[in-house]
Amino acid sequence: MRKSESTGRRRTAKRAVKNLPQREDGAQTRQQLLEVAGQLFAEHGYARATSKEICERAGTNIAAVNYHFGGKEGLYAAVLEEAHARLVSIELVTTTTQGDADAGGKLRILLTQVVGEIARRDRDTWALRVLSREVMAPTPMMDRMISSQIQPKLKLVAGMIAQAIGVPPSHPAVSRCLVSIIGPCGFLLITNPDWQKQVFPSFTLDPQTLVEHMVTFALGGLQAVAASVQRSNRR
Amino acid sequence: MRKSESTGRRRTAKRAVKNLPQREDGAQTRQQLLEVAGQLFAEHGYARATSKEICERAGTNIAAVNYHFGGKEGLYAAVLEEAHARLVSIELVTTTTQGDADAGGKLRILLTQVVGEIARRDRDTWALRVLSREVMAPTPMMDRMISSQIQPKLKLVAGMIAQAIGVPPSHPAVSRCLVSIIGPCGFLLITNPDWQKQVFPSFTLDPQTLVEHMVTFALGGLQAVAASVQRSNRR
Repeated sequence: MRKSESTGRRRTAKRAVKNLPQREDGAQTRQQLLEVAGQLFAEHGYARATSKEICERAGTNIAAVNYHFGGKEGLYAAVLEEAHARLVSIELVTTTTQGDADAGGKLRILLTQVVGEIARRDRDTWALRVLSREVMAPTPMMDRMISSQIQPKLKLVAGMIAQAIGVPPSHPAVSRCLVSIIGPCGFLLITNPDWQKQVFPSFTLDPQTLVEHMVTFALGGLQAVAASVQRSNRR
Repeated sequence: MRKSESTGRRRTAKRAVKNLPQREDGAQTRQQLLEVAGQLFAEHGYARATSKEICERAGTNIAAVNYHFGGKEGLYAAVLEEAHARLVSIELVTTTTQGDADAGGKLRILLTQVVGEIARRDRDTWALRVLSREVMAPTPMMDRMISSQIQPKLKLVAGMIAQAIGVPPSHPAVSRCLVSIIGPCGFLLITNPDWQKQVFPSFTLDPQTLVEHMVTFALGGLQAVAASVQRSNRR
């Protein structure tokens, strides 16, 4: 946080603009707002985090929220998009699914990223806390994240799975396989780590071992589903 | 709800006892309190549902909560236990895991019960809403449900999985397989159905198809994990 922004809290947009440093870096202010808003939304939830508090902590003014995000709703929608990009970026999903590796290799790359983030989630990262809050109690602001982040990524992964089990991407078996592979990640992301320890005594969120297990289990599952789909096609 | 209980709201325990029907059915009052409390905890969460409101709706008095449950905390702990028993009873888990069917047959019985409950969850059942609230934001009152409901059931299922992959029940691969099999159910239980439809376009929570998929995927996954464990034992 830049000192000049954090100390000068301005009451009106007019005064704020007048008092801002000469070479105001818009991109940096935007990033600073996203970061602070992410932390506050993770802590208090969308409804209870106020624009006023976000701006005070970011050392900026309400006008900046309106200018960069069109208001609190837009800021929250942007926070959700940023959170999903931090869980797994569209660039990684694209290069991985379009790459030359086999299904196991591709799953390993994607699960290493996602499980790594889940294992790190308690170390001051707001992204996954915001995401799990939203998935449990969705707001209308999630639509933008679904269309700009989740759907394009899932479409790529669905294509990869469709290929692995030998069906078109629109086949309902693809969605069911997505739930089987993504479900355990979502479950580990949403449930409380202390609860996990109590319930699964010998379970540890050690990313390397867990990713290897998940890849093995998923490949075995996909193979069995592929065989089952072939059997029912033959009937 | 019995008319005599629902209409007469009494202010003190003394008057209540005096005014109760001659053959007061303690078990029925207990059940009525559980049912009403389950609905209110599902609606408002533990913190915001008050004993006063529960008793008013149940047509009973605070003394009954203390008598049957030792207070609001005990009532909530009992609601959690009841909720997990409704998701899947210890009797079903015992007879299934100890039965003669193969791993696939046993998984089919258990998943049919659990997925069936999840598919029904929006039709006036409080049990799963209370459970998902609690798993997302655990309270100390969950300990009793974990020790009396989750642990004995998971121990039986863990034994079944250990047998299927050929390792002792304490092997860490067993816990990971539990997460792989239970995770998708937990994910479907906790996430919002509207969100599921938006994110997985061709996914439907049709219990029969979903259970068949889950059994197929799980058996394939378990087989792959078993082969992997054998390979690493040989090294």
